[in-house]
Amino acid sequence: MKKFFSVKDVPDLRKFISEAKNVKANPFGQENLGKHKTLGLIFLNPSLRTRLSTQKAGLNLGMQVMVMNMGQEGWALETKDGVVMDGTSVEHIREAAAVIGQYCDIVGLRSFPSLKDREADYTEELFNKFMEFCKVPVVSLESATRHPLQSFADLLTIEEEKKVEKPKVVLTWAPHVKALPQAVPNSFAEWMNRAQKEGMIDFIITHPKGYELSEEFTEGVTITHNQSEAIKDADFVYVKNWSGFQEYGKIIATDEEWMLNSKRLSNHTKVMHCLPVRRDVELASEILDGPQSLVQTEAGNRLWAAQTVLKTILEDLS
Amino acid sequence: MKKFFSVKDVPDLRKFISEAKNVKANPFGQENLGKHKTLGLIFLNPSLRTRLSTQKAGLNLGMQVMVMNMGQEGWALETKDGVVMDGTSVEHIREAAAVIGQYCDIVGLRSFPSLKDREADYTEELFNKFMEFCKVPVVSLESATRHPLQSFADLLTIEEEKKVEKPKVVLTWAPHVKALPQAVPNSFAEWMNRAQKEGMIDFIITHPKGYELSEEFTEGVTITHNQSEAIKDADFVYVKNWSGFQEYGKIIATDEEWMLNSKRLSNHTKVMHCLPVRRDVELASEILDGPQSLVQTEAGNRLWAAQTVLKTILEDLS
Amino acid sequence: MKKFFSVKDVPDLRKFISEAKNVKANPFGQENLGKHKTLGLIFLNPSLRTRLSTQKAGLNLGMQVMVMNMGQEGWALETKDGVVMDGTSVEHIREAAAVIGQYCDIVGLRSFPSLKDREADYTEELFNKFMEFCKVPVVSLESATRHPLQSFADLLTIEEEKKVEKPKVVLTWAPHVKALPQAVPNSFAEWMNRAQKEGMIDFIITHPKGYELSEEFTEGVTITHNQSEAIKDADFVYVKNWSGFQEYGKIIATDEEWMLNSKRLSNHTKVMHCLPVRRDVELASEILDGPQSLVQTEAGNRLWAAQTVLKTILEDLS
Repeated sequence: MKKFFSVKDVPDLRKFISEAKNVKANPFGQENLGKHKTLGLIFLNPSLRTRLSTQKAGLNLGMQVMVMNMGQEGWALETKDGVVMDGTSVEHIREAAAVIGQYCDIVGLRSFPSLKDREADYTEELFNKFMEFCKVPVVSLESATRHPLQSFADLLTIEEEKKVEKPKVVLTWAPHVKALPQAVPNSFAEWMNRAQKEGMIDFIITHPKGYELSEEFTEGVTITHNQSEAIKDADFVYVKNWSGFQEYGKIIATDEEWMLNSKRLSNHTKVMHCLPVRRDVELASEILDGPQSLVQTEAGNRLWAAQTVLKTILEDLS
Repeated sequence: MKKFFSVKDVPDLRKFISEAKNVKANPFGQENLGKHKTLGLIFLNPSLRTRLSTQKAGLNLGMQVMVMNMGQEGWALETKDGVVMDGTSVEHIREAAAVIGQYCDIVGLRSFPSLKDREADYTEELFNKFMEFCKVPVVSLESATRHPLQSFADLLTIEEEKKVEKPKVVLTWAPHVKALPQAVPNSFAEWMNRAQKEGMIDFIITHPKGYELSEEFTEGVTITHNQSEAIKDADFVYVKNWSGFQEYGKIIATDEEWMLNSKRLSNHTKVMHCLPVRRDVELASEILDGPQSLVQTEAGNRLWAAQTVLKTILEDLS
Repeated sequence: MKKFFSVKDVPDLRKFISEAKNVKANPFGQENLGKHKTLGLIFLNPSLRTRLSTQKAGLNLGMQVMVMNMGQEGWALETKDGVVMDGTSVEHIREAAAVIGQYCDIVGLRSFPSLKDREADYTEELFNKFMEFCKVPVVSLESATRHPLQSFADLLTIEEEKKVEKPKVVLTWAPHVKALPQAVPNSFAEWMNRAQKEGMIDFIITHPKGYELSEEFTEGVTITHNQSEAIKDADFVYVKNWSGFQEYGKIIATDEEWMLNSKRLSNHTKVMHCLPVRRDVELASEILDGPQSLVQTEAGNRLWAAQTVLKTILEDLS
């Protein structure tokens, strides 16, 4: 594995899940694999789960880990080419990425979308340039359009928690007070779509009209605007807000009815969310605090997802 | 030891001091005790001594240490239950604490008081919730009402530096330009009160009228408003500013006469302060720069206090 | 080596370069030298290359490394003596430096100049006080007037890349949109002046009138205002902006003609810059992206410079 940016970077999904289970069962089984290797974690945006789980994953593998928050400790990066840099950007991503790549064997990078310029966001301009100039394997810690470590942990959670061979998984939009990126739902859809094609799950998406995600991620997936119908017999409901893709970065509706509560939930349905979650805005507290919630299991699995990715890259380095 | 929040968490004070002396004499004697264990240090407020000493303590014990500044790298946490989270708080402490607890074997947490809502501060709402949901041992890196690692280091310093079997220790209020928390004086009073009950020291508090600390910490301790009388034959004078407890968070008096200088100090008296100190506001430079100051000894002992606490928790983990 | 603040701290320049080549050839050859030793990296200003390269250098030597950004995680330091600290400074450098020195075996410190008070900047008030009170070896991660780790990496790069025994090295001023410190050009001049005296290179400085650097760094060096003449047969051109020393901290001219482009560059000339660089303001993109640029080689050599300095100090510690 030379990079971990989307589900397309995973050659064998079932084997990847199986590897993650092995890593979880034996966290220090490869504690010398990362010896003399450096992991640089570069954050252009805030992070809690991703930061701590990936840092720990690197340490568990014996790597040297360096964490850098560019916004606070570093400075603004220019991404456009051909720009006379007489403004506020202190350094071009060409230089910065190449320098960071010289000090690291693997780089993790987080960079949120602008939610203003859809083309720049969806061509993953910053991420692609970083990968190009960095020259070492790059792990996405969430890019403008995807959050693959989250989705990998989510699929691992589903595989661990499923009670039937081929569970029904529903991604549902939820209300929020802010306009959020589509990265988590895009990525979840991309991973579940692949899992569905490989016969691991059945997958449906439900959201209010206007919240259609890019077809790049949902092609072939059943989409409905009837949430109640969609979640009725679901084994897993994945709850997440996102802002508009067509009306890019906009809040199109804030229908409170879309907030999941226990009344509308079957007893056998498990509820998932990537966190952080707005209690009683996105999801009812009673669900979060009850036995049907898997949010902490997902968060815990972030560690094993990250460690499996780093392990796989390290094995291919030498 | 399952947590380190107040002196009440220490079963045997004399033994704890003795352990700290052992750790100081042999810093790397338990360098494998923390192998495969992760220490997470979570700061909701700035830190210098506590941050560096606790990070180093964990490393000396062979732990993996992760430092996280929530305010800059993370985001604002909601602590109230039953709140519809449609405001500025991005994540509830229930989720955040549980997640952090999954990635760490021990968590250190710093959280200052609001100085506005005495009840919320003195019920230690944030800290107690964090400990409840985190589920792993939590070490206070200073909470709303206490700073136990500081007080432990202070008591260690007194035990090391005392010239008589049972020295006289005085806590004196000092002027400042800002309204400061009561955490350090509360904690010092709590620890010295315990030490006095165990026959280790004699303890007196002196402050201007209106600066009474909560009786929770000072019960049974002699309190006087006459500083000169109090410090006359003291072996150790602990200098510290704090804001009002009754008139909560207020500056009641700023009497410059309360600033200790060398004229009013006996030759045999040692002077202590937790740092950072406002020179010539809280304490005269001539004392800080002279042979009677123990401020650097205290700061150095912060490392051994932290390492002793972590060691004790690690020994009880397995 | 007891400190690394300027080229004067290097007893034997040729041997130092030779050591750096050894370290680069065998990065983990001294991986136990730093065992049980702590490196504290204290940043009063932002950093990318210096931060990552020095952190990694410490880790490569087996040190415990702690990184602290004072501005964000800590607080403002007072440097003046005899000041009643009733303003915004929370702690005096006397206390802070002494505390940090107790937790570290080596301290790296970054502190930029004010560019307002030349005397305070050029007496290196902050740095000298820090070194005095810290009591352990201090490595400059860039001070008000010098950036020796950069200059060491630059000289290593020249020694590696030179095609003739005694290459011609030119330092040229370049335009910028902001008033920048003189630390990098001062330091480069100081190191190249020493290298010239030891017969390793020929050295010339070129800049517009008014940009004269302090003679402390350039004494005996040929200075010309004719850039074209200076760079004509240069083997290495070091491009850098700086603000005025006489008219302290001022932008005196912003002559765009001084920006180096490929038209005015001989084919055999290599171009250097410390980074970050303002593309097409300081230096033409076509040069940065072309085969004559050494900027990434310099950045990579920052690691070996830092590791050589730390190794040398560690060897002298015991």
